[in-house]
Parts: sequence; C-alpha cells; structure tokens
Amino acid sequence: MHNTQDYQTAFLDYLEIFSKVREPKNLYEPINYILRLGGKRLRPVLTLMSAEVFNTDYKKAMDAALSIEVFHNFSLVHDDIMDAAPLRRGQQTVHEKWDANTGILSGDAMLIMAYQLFENYESETFQALAKLFSKTALEVCEGQQYDVDFETRDDVTIPQYLKMIEYKTAVLVGAAMKMGAIVANASKSDQNGIYEFGRLLGIAFQLQDDYLDAFGNPETFGKQVGGDIIENKKTYLYLKALEFLNNQDNKQLQHLFSVNLKDNEEKISTVKQFFISSGSAEATQKEIENYTKKAFSVLETLSINKEKKSQLEAFGNALMTRKV
Amino acid sequence: MHNTQDYQTAFLDYLEIFSKVREPKNLYEPINYILRLGGKRLRPVLTLMSAEVFNTDYKKAMDAALSIEVFHNFSLVHDDIMDAAPLRRGQQTVHEKWDANTGILSGDAMLIMAYQLFENYESETFQALAKLFSKTALEVCEGQQYDVDFETRDDVTIPQYLKMIEYKTAVLVGAAMKMGAIVANASKSDQNGIYEFGRLLGIAFQLQDDYLDAFGNPETFGKQVGGDIIENKKTYLYLKALEFLNNQDNKQLQHLFSVNLKDNEEKISTVKQFFISSGSAEATQKEIENYTKKAFSVLETLSINKEKKSQLEAFGNALMTRKV
Repeated sequence: MHNTQDYQTAFLDYLEIFSKVREPKNLYEPINYILRLGGKRLRPVLTLMSAEVFNTDYKKAMDAALSIEVFHNFSLVHDDIMDAAPLRRGQQTVHEKWDANTGILSGDAMLIMAYQLFENYESETFQALAKLFSKTALEVCEGQQYDVDFETRDDVTIPQYLKMIEYKTAVLVGAAMKMGAIVANASKSDQNGIYEFGRLLGIAFQLQDDYLDAFGNPETFGKQVGGDIIENKKTYLYLKALEFLNNQDNKQLQHLFSVNLKDNEEKISTVKQFFISSGSAEATQKEIENYTKKAFSVLETLSINKEKKSQLEAFGNALMTRKV
Repeated sequence: MHNTQDYQTAFLDYLEIFSKVREPKNLYEPINYILRLGGKRLRPVLTLMSAEVFNTDYKKAMDAALSIEVFHNFSLVHDDIMDAAPLRRGQQTVHEKWDANTGILSGDAMLIMAYQLFENYESETFQALAKLFSKTALEVCEGQQYDVDFETRDDVTIPQYLKMIEYKTAVLVGAAMKMGAIVANASKSDQNGIYEFGRLLGIAFQLQDDYLDAFGNPETFGKQVGGDIIENKKTYLYLKALEFLNNQDNKQLQHLFSVNLKDNEEKISTVKQFFISSGSAEATQKEIENYTKKAFSVLETLSINKEKKSQLEAFGNALMTRKV
C-alpha cells in the first residue's frame, strides 16, 4: 500500500496534465485557477486509497478521483457566489477575480467535465460511477439548500441539522471511497461498506469542524476561531446548547445569535461559556466519538485483511486529529 | 408515424408525472415552475420523432427527450441570470420570482437531473447518451461564453459568429435527434447523419431568428421586432452588412451599434435600410437557404424509406416557416 503523500503527489501530477487551458479562455482559465488553488486533496486521495484497499492499482482510479475533485471545486465556486465570499484558501474567489457570471458558467462547465472524466471506464463501470455521482451531487445541492433555508429558520432540529451536514459534506466523502471500490470491481457489500465508512467519518469530521470553530487552537485551526459564532451559525454546538439550557439562558443565547456586533470578543466568550456550562461541548465531543467509532466498526464488515483495515483506521484517526 | 402534436401531447403527459415537488421545496419548486412555463417543446419532439424514424416506439425515447428539455431549461435559468432578464415566455424568470442564488442552485440540480434521466437505459446506451450529452452541454457552455465575449469585441468574424450559434443553439438540436437514433439502436452512420441534419437545420433556424428579428412580422414573430438592433447585437445581418458596406457607411453602422438611445424607431429603420442596401438581408436569406438545403441533402444518406425522409423534410419546412 502507498501512503497519503504518494497519492497526493500522483494526483497533483495528474491534475497538472488535466488543467491545460482550452478555448474559450474566459471559460477555462477560472476552472484551472480554482483547481490549482490547493487544499489537501482529501477526497481524491480517498478514492485512490479505496481502489488500492480493494486490490487494484490506484492509478486506475485516477479519473474517478479527479472527477470528485472537479465536482468539489464546482460546488465551491457556486457556493462562494451564493455566500458572496471574497476569499477561498486565502486567495480571491472566482467571482471576485472575474465576475459572478463567469463563476456561474465556469462552474457549470466543471460539473459537466466531472461526468466526462468517467468516459474512459467501460460501460458498466461508467454507469455505476455516473449513477453514484448524480445521486451524490443532487444530495449536495439539497444539503446546500437546507443550509440556506436554515439561516432564516429558528426551529431547526438536531436530526435536520445532521441530515444537512450529511448531504452537504459527508455523502461526497462516502462517494469518493465507493468510487474507488467500483473501479476495483469490489463486491456490492464492500462497495456499500466503504461508502458507509466514508459517510460516517464525514459526519464526524464536520461535527469536529463545528467544535474546532469554537474551541480549536487558533494557531492550527486555519480559520478564524469563533467564526460560526460571529455569523450566528446554528451548528450542532448551538442546537445542543439550546436543548440543554434552562429557559432564561436559552433565551439569552438565542438573543446573542440574533445580533451582529462590531466587537465580537465578548459575544464569543459568553457563547463559548454557554456551550461549556450547558454540557453541549461535551455532548458534541461524544457525538464525534460515536460517529468515528461507528465508522471504524463498519470496517469489520469489509472483506479485506487486517493490515488494510489498520491503514483505513489510521487514516481516519489522522483525519480526526487533523494530521493529514 | 405520429405527428408533431401527438409527440407534444405525450411529452407533456410525461413531464407532468416527472415534475412532482420534492423536498427541499425551495430547490425543486423553481425547477417545476420553469419546466411548466410552456414553449413548443421542439427539442424533445425531435428526439421522439427521430426514434420513430429509426423504427422504434417513440415512448422508449421519452426519458432522453425529457433530459434534453430539462437541460435546455437549465441553460435558460442560468443564461437569464447572466443576462439579468426579467421575463421568459412572458412570465417572471426564476431569479426574478425567487432570487439569483435560487436560480444558480436549482439550475445545478437540473443539470444533474438531466443525466439521471438516462439511468433507465441499459449501460451501453446509457454511456452513449451521457457522452453525447456531456460533449453537447460543454459546447453549449462554450457557445454562451463566446456570445458573452463577442459583446465587448469589435473584430468578430462571420466564421466565429457561425461557430458561436452552432455551439449555443444548433448542437443541441443535433444531439436531440441523435439521442432518438441511439435509443433506436440505429447504425453509427445513421446516428451521425441525423445529428448533421439537426445541426444544419439548427444553424438555419438561428440565422432565420436573426433575420426575423429585423424583418419579421410583428404579429407573428413573438418577440419585439428590432430587439437585436436596440441591443446592438452583432448578428449575421450586422456582420455581413459591415463586410459589404463602403468605408463611410460601415463607420456609420458601427457608430449606430455603439449607442443606446431612448427612442429607437429611427435607429431601427436606418439600420434595416443598411441591411437591405448593403445586400446583407439578401445574403442572409441565401445562407439560411443554403443551410436548409444542406440539411435536406443529408437526409438522402440515411437508410430510411422515402416516406420518413418526407416527414423529416416536412418538419424542417414547417420549422423554417415557423408553422410548428
């Protein structure tokens, strides 16, 4: 088996070949720009790793891995327009560097190119990959819509929130791994198992992202700590705190999440205090642990040897301690 | 063989079943709204007709026909955002009725749903349809990009303009017909022939649209006559006039196409005079005739009987005289 670094390097080489500028330039330049902005390439790495876990040369999964990465970046381009986000990975977003129309059209082209990347597989593999891709892509759209809807709702339940992050984030992690298994011609049971592993780990990862947004180390987290609190984002931490707090504290927390302040230091500190005192911080950590454990227990059902299970578990642990 | 009306009716019945609102409503309601806005459903009708021309029950091509229509409407939703268009078929556009973000996300979902509509075909047909779809969809994006680029360029050549309308409009007509042939398992030669027929007819249709925009009967054209002139659109009529006019008239026409006026009556009438006096109007009609004839001559190469060739030719003539 290769390691994460091997996969990353091979993937970046492949991406380099893929991202040659074609005509019309105004359509394809933004695509290459966003694809080269960087990131850890976690999703494509998972596709390559999964193919090798199921005893196939990971290079055979390269097109599927690239498809997943192109789709992921398509969703970033369109989401950034919807969120009016100026920056992505510390650089200008596509609609900032060009304009919103360019972002829309280049994004559309990326979604189509993601499908084209399956074309070199023989027809049954092609159909399996494209079907999984469509189902997943539509769920990602639904997740984004729920996320938008939740901004203006104050009756979001925890199951609804979990479904939102599952659709918006976790299903793509599951699909990335299942694609590796499909290319490797793994059994249906193994395909579904590795999907579940990815999906559960994806939920754990997103919950941890919520947690670290409030309680992470500013030096290693990468984003502004407290960002979700400033933006009044109804994360798991917030919803769980509302569930646990008594009436008066509940109202105060809801009030804090209805205002936009210039100086947020005090707001962040008060809200974090609520997250801790209510028991929400602890409950969130428990939930992260639960999902991670569930993911690892799925590994037991796969028809792969111990060494490979250990490698997947090691990757999962590295991901959850953010050391990948 | 069935007639156009039969295909339209059957298609609308099928669309009705397809367009049930799912959750999240804010994602799927705009999709059903735009799909039900009306239109002549020319593209799906062509898919159904093509399947029957190649001796297959047209109902087998229903999913492919619907895919083409869903894609066409996806492109309308995103183009209308880019053009900031308030109206579509006399009704509010999606981004006007909801907002731009809704238009972007619902459009994305439609593009994915268009691919999903191929999933009921067996894997080789699925792959052939999806490959053709991706190639065509990417060309439509490129055509839209060229159209945007041309707005700010004053050195557009006629071959470049023809390529733009081919990509933006004609390839989808060709693809609609080829999909019917693919579903019918027609020979590769027939598949490519019917694609050419559609593509050439599509170019003729778009050139005629340019022509009618200036010289059409206001009572039957459907859009505002002179609209392209008001918007300074560099159509075939305009480019051909520039080619034919002497230096002084050429400059005056270019000047007229650089201004935005409150009262456009005089501008429209002067420009139309240039189109006629230069010989551009006549040359445009010739070009429409050329493309239509080329389309009909391709029919000769198809391995179908005379009656079916006549039906395709009759449909082509009805289309070009706008009687469909």
